[in-house]
Amino acid sequence: MDYPSKVLAKAVDEISGLPGIGKKTALRLALHLLKQPSSRAAGLGNSIISLVNEIKYCKECHNFSDFEICEICSSHKRSDEVICIVEDVRDVIAIENTGKYTGKYLILGGKISPMEGVGPNQLNIPSIEKKLSAGNVKEFIFALSATMEGDTTAYYIYKKFKNSDVKFSSIARGISVGDELEYADEISLGRSIVNRLPYNEKD
Amino acid sequence: MDYPSKVLAKAVDEISGLPGIGKKTALRLALHLLKQPSSRAAGLGNSIISLVNEIKYCKECHNFSDFEICEICSSHKRSDEVICIVEDVRDVIAIENTGKYTGKYLILGGKISPMEGVGPNQLNIPSIEKKLSAGNVKEFIFALSATMEGDTTAYYIYKKFKNSDVKFSSIARGISVGDELEYADEISLGRSIVNRLPYNEKD
Repeated sequence: MDYPSKVLAKAVDEISGLPGIGKKTALRLALHLLKQPSSRAAGLGNSIISLVNEIKYCKECHNFSDFEICEICSSHKRSDEVICIVEDVRDVIAIENTGKYTGKYLILGGKISPMEGVGPNQLNIPSIEKKLSAGNVKEFIFALSATMEGDTTAYYIYKKFKNSDVKFSSIARGISVGDELEYADEISLGRSIVNRLPYNEKD
Repeated sequence: MDYPSKVLAKAVDEISGLPGIGKKTALRLALHLLKQPSSRAAGLGNSIISLVNEIKYCKECHNFSDFEICEICSSHKRSDEVICIVEDVRDVIAIENTGKYTGKYLILGGKISPMEGVGPNQLNIPSIEKKLSAGNVKEFIFALSATMEGDTTAYYIYKKFKNSDVKFSSIARGISVGDELEYADEISLGRSIVNRLPYNEKD
């Protein structure tokens, strides 16, 4: 595609490098920005630049943070005894939004996936060891994807640390709230029968 | 949604201000940028800022340009006698990609749409008058959307300038190449019968 201007071509090129955004969408976004007050584009551009330059990683849990230690890890209201092991920051946000979890987190930074060339060495597994040797932790909760890679990652970590006197648990798999049984997949339905819970009228 | 970092929250907020991009997609894009080398985000951010600051509008046709007069308007290979009237720069790019047009353009910057509060005064209609008084133009081609607004805009311009001795034409409406007749809408099919062309074996 030929663009009437080199700065436009450059912007379209950069925007279309983002995942899921093609040339046509990039052009639409660029034309949208050109119709806005110029402060809008300056705000967007600067926020992207400062995102990458200013963000820090929490030394404890590897979450993104504005400080050396993130707000969750430095909070006295959160228990040190339970650590939830997740793949990335989106999972932390999702679990925080439930308001049901009061422990801390550990972000692996991915899952073991030979297909994508990700092995255990690329993940933040040494931090699990560090948490263990600190001695406060009583339980690790796996909150990983319900996929082959997620299961492999949980199994690898479990096998590596099963001799320590820490409990390992996994978030419950089953039928989502609002799901109709007839449309549920067999594996989830099967697991939800095997792992059935005592009936609780408050649920 | 609570984000673990203020710079992340700011970036997500700015990115999700773009049309068609929600908070979840914005977060995905921000996390993608954080996984890339920081030069990638700097390139993207700076290209967006310079897009808005450095781009110029061609004084002749109102297309985006790096110069006062765009490449098409300043080209000696393009005829001054035929002017294609389009809504915005995407239409210019689309027509240029066909390689079938050798005249020049005039970008209206929209179409008359009372629903969106766009009247003739917001469009670049004075430029049509300017082209007319310059005296070179022999034909204006309307290449506007096949919608009520596009038709209204063409009609408004035609009515305003019909007394000048310039020809007005409109791009052909009909059945697209590759379309099956049975799935074509009645209006396009009807127009394509009314405006049938002599059979040409080279088409």
